[in-house]
Amino acid sequence: MLKNWMMEEKPEEKELKARLNAVREKLWAQQMRMKEHKLPVLVLMEGWGTAGKGSCTGQVIRNIDPRFFKVATLEKKTEEEKRKPFLSRYFTQIPEAGKFVFMDSGWMDEVTGLRLHGKLSKGEYEMRLDSIRRFERQLTDNGYLVMKFFFHISEKEQKKRIASLLKDIDTEWRVNNNDQWQNKHYGKCMEVFDEYLEMTNSPSAPWYVVNAKSRKWAELQVLETLTEGIEIALQNKALAVPLLQNVFPLVKMPKLDEIPLDEKVDEKEYKAQLESLQDHLRDLHNRLYRKQVPVIIAYEGWDAAGKGGNIKRITEALDPRGFEVHPIASPEPHEKARHYLWRFWTRLPKTGHIAIFDRTWYGRVMVERLEGFCSENDWKRAYHEINEFEKELADWGAVMIKFWVQIDKDTQLERFEMRQKTPEKQWKITEEDWRNREKWDAYEDAVNEMIQKTSTVYAPWYILESVDKKYARLKALKIVIERLEAALKE
Amino acid sequence: MLKNWMMEEKPEEKELKARLNAVREKLWAQQMRMKEHKLPVLVLMEGWGTAGKGSCTGQVIRNIDPRFFKVATLEKKTEEEKRKPFLSRYFTQIPEAGKFVFMDSGWMDEVTGLRLHGKLSKGEYEMRLDSIRRFERQLTDNGYLVMKFFFHISEKEQKKRIASLLKDIDTEWRVNNNDQWQNKHYGKCMEVFDEYLEMTNSPSAPWYVVNAKSRKWAELQVLETLTEGIEIALQNKALAVPLLQNVFPLVKMPKLDEIPLDEKVDEKEYKAQLESLQDHLRDLHNRLYRKQVPVIIAYEGWDAAGKGGNIKRITEALDPRGFEVHPIASPEPHEKARHYLWRFWTRLPKTGHIAIFDRTWYGRVMVERLEGFCSENDWKRAYHEINEFEKELADWGAVMIKFWVQIDKDTQLERFEMRQKTPEKQWKITEEDWRNREKWDAYEDAVNEMIQKTSTVYAPWYILESVDKKYARLKALKIVIERLEAALKE
Repeated sequence: MLKNWMMEEKPEEKELKARLNAVREKLWAQQMRMKEHKLPVLVLMEGWGTAGKGSCTGQVIRNIDPRFFKVATLEKKTEEEKRKPFLSRYFTQIPEAGKFVFMDSGWMDEVTGLRLHGKLSKGEYEMRLDSIRRFERQLTDNGYLVMKFFFHISEKEQKKRIASLLKDIDTEWRVNNNDQWQNKHYGKCMEVFDEYLEMTNSPSAPWYVVNAKSRKWAELQVLETLTEGIEIALQNKALAVPLLQNVFPLVKMPKLDEIPLDEKVDEKEYKAQLESLQDHLRDLHNRLYRKQVPVIIAYEGWDAAGKGGNIKRITEALDPRGFEVHPIASPEPHEKARHYLWRFWTRLPKTGHIAIFDRTWYGRVMVERLEGFCSENDWKRAYHEINEFEKELADWGAVMIKFWVQIDKDTQLERFEMRQKTPEKQWKITEEDWRNREKWDAYEDAVNEMIQKTSTVYAPWYILESVDKKYARLKALKIVIERLEAALKE
Repeated sequence: MLKNWMMEEKPEEKELKARLNAVREKLWAQQMRMKEHKLPVLVLMEGWGTAGKGSCTGQVIRNIDPRFFKVATLEKKTEEEKRKPFLSRYFTQIPEAGKFVFMDSGWMDEVTGLRLHGKLSKGEYEMRLDSIRRFERQLTDNGYLVMKFFFHISEKEQKKRIASLLKDIDTEWRVNNNDQWQNKHYGKCMEVFDEYLEMTNSPSAPWYVVNAKSRKWAELQVLETLTEGIEIALQNKALAVPLLQNVFPLVKMPKLDEIPLDEKVDEKEYKAQLESLQDHLRDLHNRLYRKQVPVIIAYEGWDAAGKGGNIKRITEALDPRGFEVHPIASPEPHEKARHYLWRFWTRLPKTGHIAIFDRTWYGRVMVERLEGFCSENDWKRAYHEINEFEKELADWGAVMIKFWVQIDKDTQLERFEMRQKTPEKQWKITEEDWRNREKWDAYEDAVNEMIQKTSTVYAPWYILESVDKKYARLKALKIVIERLEAALKE
């Protein structure tokens, strides 16, 4: 793309000014329509060191109300960020509906930089490219406008700029080691950048190469392309996109009604096993921490199936400094305004930590599907999106354990009635629980489909038969222990 | 994609039947909605020899009214087809709005076959992949649903099928050499197929791998995926898609109002030059024919600018068996029902022939733009689509010459008035010409933009100053001669 790319020539000063004025006004007017249409816009500014990404971003945002944008700068990774999956620092920064986020260099810079400095093998690099393509596709599929700019300058121009910045004590600090390294290895960088642009150039999130030799001209190119992109995105509403075929290996799972629920354990046996399993888990947690393995345990199940008590038996055995439980309710407005996986990306554990989710991202294909909170295309697409999300986590090294806590309809009724009769348990039962119960059959179909389609080998579902809650608790502990031991052996 | 692809298991017979019945009805119902929504659907059936693409197509079309589909089979190329650009036999077969075309193997089969048999170098193969990606993207960008199926069977299964077909004299003919070749080189084919699927798997036209071990199960997979795809496509109307940045080298062109129009030639000089130029062209045409170079000459220009007379001076010098003039009026219904470039793909010359277009595909960015016959997104996208189209032709080896026949507004008025006064010329002037004249300024802007954006090095625009028609004719002849001589030298 860079090699055969044609520099568009800078227009004359007068035309340049006129076009700049026109497009600035256009952008100013667009932000209100973006808000109305709830269009989120992610602008990625990439390119050569000293090409002027930062100052261009500074110019562009002058035409936007400060409430409507954020600028995210790619700083050196914090210790915290180093302990998160590669995409985490980007996914967590995506804009809200109706707003802009400008990324002053982002995932391209990170990944090509590592590649250039020999810190990613070819195989690792290709995995990153896969992750990036999926990330960008998930954004555009979910209604994001993703505008990707690459600021291009020649080797000579870069050299000139570095020299001129270095001459002045006030600007010297703006040249970093990497700029100088790039200039010394311009040809090699060109190869890698060019290939990266090619490999990540998709019709729904294409690259725009900016001739960055003149600042004003660069600004005009960015503004004109950006406003054009926004204009087009505003024309589309509630886009439906093709469903992709599953490419992840699946584990064959039974249907819920094929699962016998008569498993039981007696009180004495339970107590003895519980204690020994919890001791074992406690020990494993310490070793996991030292080995820096992240663990994600996800709970889904029927109302009153016993999720809370089950989680409790796990957490009792964990060091409180090393785990967190995330109860997931309906999304808050700032969460609803973003990709539905955003609120889970922001809740991922650090390496060595355990995150337990009490209800999860699977809400998309259960409650959101059945209550019509998202479109049919949205929830049908979600199986694949979720498999991709969990693949990202598994590739990062996370142990993923997903529990479906299963009871039958009669057991639920008994427990509901018990809750209503018992004053200290009444808070646990609401009108909504009764309404959900009426839709049991539809939920069962949805759960069956979910379990079939998202039980991947790297993140399988486990059924916890919870008519006898004690049995379910021991089973959960055993599965967690088994998976953690396997991870420690790797 | 094939290597890490998970065969979905065949459901039990009873479920299979129920789902088949349901999905057949669904397809039957969808065809009427497709017609209403004017949705064209292209179904590409690719895969291993003997995998059952043909018989599956036969099953699928049983659920469609015969007026609503065509099946295109990839036969051996005719002599005519061999003398057309690679994409021609596919582009010419695309469906009309509201209808299906099933391609029983298509461009994948052709390209991977040539690659496997060493008839395409790596570079040529990659050019083909580029062409294919552009072709498929142009279709989906223009509202086509493109469904791509790959019928997959194992080496063992293929061997078994070949043996069983060969045993019976009635089925023996269905095994071709290529099937046997594939089975002998199954591993190598797998590599090439896998890479092809990967390289052409785009979110807007993704691949679906069909487990083709059982015919009924294969049919069900195709039908369910197809009806799902149609359902999704029916939800989107008048999609606007991102505009792509130009990647083709451009020639710098003047604006129309910068072009002096005072060039003249006197009668005597004209006659002498005309004769000698035409003689020269006549000779070149013969040599071109022998060298099998295809030539495309495109005329655009103001009404009454003198296109007709100019074309006449070219054709007078050509062997009538070796050229064709295509006058382009507004599209007929069957043309309007397809991608706007379709009616030009169907009119391409064979190698060694010359096609002259009196008005062209540039109607998209002139009259269709200004009269609102297409959306803003459509005509803005068209510059790139046309550059891609002409790139395809240039890569095929065609000489592309594009003339803009230029006059000023006063000259047009004189000629209009002259036409109205002269009885034998009155047919040449209509109400519409007067109406267009009123929009001169808007047309001029559109023409300027068109010439700037589509004057590529491989298909540049030439301005013919035609206030003196004789001057313009000589200039056209000289340019044609110059370009043809250059092509003969290559």
